[in-house]
Amino acid sequence: MSAVSDSRRASILGTGLIGSSVALALKGQGWIVSGVDGDESRAREAEAAGVIDAVGLDSAADLVVVAVPVSSLAAAVAAALLACPAATVTDVGSVKAAIARRVHDPRFVGGHPMAGSEQDGLKGADATLFNGATWVLTPTETTDANRYADLRATIMSIGADVVELPPERHDALVALVSHVPHLTAATLMGLAASQAEEHSALLRLAAGGFRDMTRIAAGHPAIWPDICVENRDAILDGLDALSDALAAVRATVAEGDRSGLLVKLEAARAARINLPARFATAEELVELRIPVPDRKGVLAEITTLAGDLDVSIVDLEIAHSVEGDRGVLIVTIDALASDRVSAALIERGYKPSASPVGR
Amino acid sequence: MSAVSDSRRASILGTGLIGSSVALALKGQGWIVSGVDGDESRAREAEAAGVIDAVGLDSAADLVVVAVPVSSLAAAVAAALLACPAATVTDVGSVKAAIARRVHDPRFVGGHPMAGSEQDGLKGADATLFNGATWVLTPTETTDANRYADLRATIMSIGADVVELPPERHDALVALVSHVPHLTAATLMGLAASQAEEHSALLRLAAGGFRDMTRIAAGHPAIWPDICVENRDAILDGLDALSDALAAVRATVAEGDRSGLLVKLEAARAARINLPARFATAEELVELRIPVPDRKGVLAEITTLAGDLDVSIVDLEIAHSVEGDRGVLIVTIDALASDRVSAALIERGYKPSASPVGR
Repeated sequence: MSAVSDSRRASILGTGLIGSSVALALKGQGWIVSGVDGDESRAREAEAAGVIDAVGLDSAADLVVVAVPVSSLAAAVAAALLACPAATVTDVGSVKAAIARRVHDPRFVGGHPMAGSEQDGLKGADATLFNGATWVLTPTETTDANRYADLRATIMSIGADVVELPPERHDALVALVSHVPHLTAATLMGLAASQAEEHSALLRLAAGGFRDMTRIAAGHPAIWPDICVENRDAILDGLDALSDALAAVRATVAEGDRSGLLVKLEAARAARINLPARFATAEELVELRIPVPDRKGVLAEITTLAGDLDVSIVDLEIAHSVEGDRGVLIVTIDALASDRVSAALIERGYKPSASPVGR
Repeated sequence: MSAVSDSRRASILGTGLIGSSVALALKGQGWIVSGVDGDESRAREAEAAGVIDAVGLDSAADLVVVAVPVSSLAAAVAAALLACPAATVTDVGSVKAAIARRVHDPRFVGGHPMAGSEQDGLKGADATLFNGATWVLTPTETTDANRYADLRATIMSIGADVVELPPERHDALVALVSHVPHLTAATLMGLAASQAEEHSALLRLAAGGFRDMTRIAAGHPAIWPDICVENRDAILDGLDALSDALAAVRATVAEGDRSGLLVKLEAARAARINLPARFATAEELVELRIPVPDRKGVLAEITTLAGDLDVSIVDLEIAHSVEGDRGVLIVTIDALASDRVSAALIERGYKPSASPVGR
């Protein structure tokens, strides 16, 4: 609590997408929020848009959220600790061990909200961005326990689910599920492109599975040099583990070990099917797989049908068979609505099959 | 042409999904089609369903299509060549060099239709399955040129685009764009699952990109042992090339070589963006990316809007940001309709951005 007001006071360092969204979310909870940015005009824009209440780093702030690029994180955190002597300081960087090694202050707690948006910067700012998102916090031995508990409560107040992890553990996990997969997708895509003397023939053989696997390689690469520098050790470990695992698969193929291959693929299949649903939710979810002909209006028909039945579509994708382009619409809905939607689909001539998702 | 009838005669060896669909497609072009299956009851069912005109291998057939599992391909092709002395014999196996090495008959042409369906077997049989699909043919030096030209014309008559490739080249290409990516997806999934002592935390950190990359690992693994045996050499070459390429990426990360990493990622991005559109089509296509809030009815609203404007949605997916679960609806439509649909979306408060797909 601030001494001079009922409202708690926060400062945001970096008014990009995440910083601006944190500002809006905190304002929604009654906080008074100021902010600065390396580019002062961005902070002025955020003020003009009502995203922050004032431009500036508030020396009386209870909380400072540092939302700057990973490469300038350490300097920004140090500045915030100096400028705001009463504040708990947290950051939103996607790599955590490096900053934890550099900052040993009981007022600092590292953090990483697993949220983003298609639109960068102020344009994408959204008070509900963290609703249902996972927000990792990485307290260390030096972190003040009361400050950590307060920060955790604040983050939960804006809708996020807090997961507590040691910094090194966080980095190893995101290396495995984000950084190494991204590098692998780019490598597979580069390999296919470079080895294709008959480029067009190769790419015409690339069906849905290849498209799915390489989709993330189409993203803008600008963030990756920083991530690869900051999380270098965990990424190298992840790449080494992948390399070892691929060598084991290679041996299985080379030996023609059919049952060994099946064991590996079955284990991967079970793990993939058990991946939690994308959306944090209390409901049980069901995936309806609906083979769809390639005709006009089928998507509108099915999504409208769900709307008419007052069923919310949690997720939707068009999957393609291993080979070829036939579509299967995969619609994720509340399990309680599954029978109702299936019956309505069958009535209209579709052949849906239902399976539970998540666990 | 058959001597006794105006209709050409075909026999299908193997009345599963592909065999039955070929039968229906040929019947649609006026062919008289008979068929057999290792499981005789399946052939009887196909006859009862009107998929084939008669059960049996027609000794007067002009064409035999062998659609049996890869492991029994060579024996089935040999049997067809013997039983149908006038017929051109082709197959639909997903690996081509092995059969080309075993069969040296001017009447044989290897083939591989890149088509599939969510539903296996007779249930999935569909005369239009090959419409717009790529169908690889792998003629060799021994293949009779006239027979090859006839077969090519027949396949084009049922709607497929024929791509001619040497058998080994076909196998190397599908290893790169299908077999190796599949094994890699399963390996990444297995790695993440096995390394996760804190399994639930790991999997909650797995955002859209990881889900996309590992989606194919959720498929039934039963077909893979055969494929890995039959296409062993090309798969091993592909795995070795991937391993080398990953080692190069590792070196780039280990050295902190930012510009080297950017070059690799930019090249992969360009290649991925230039992947031809999923659907064979003469039209220019545009991808509209539409950030969508998590509210009921948004899919129905957008798909209905497209229908009202008489615009066919060629493809649709919900993409998620690198981190988190925010949805962006990616709708692929005819480029000519792009401005119309964008204007209507903007009128309703959406913020679409358009980019061309394919080249």
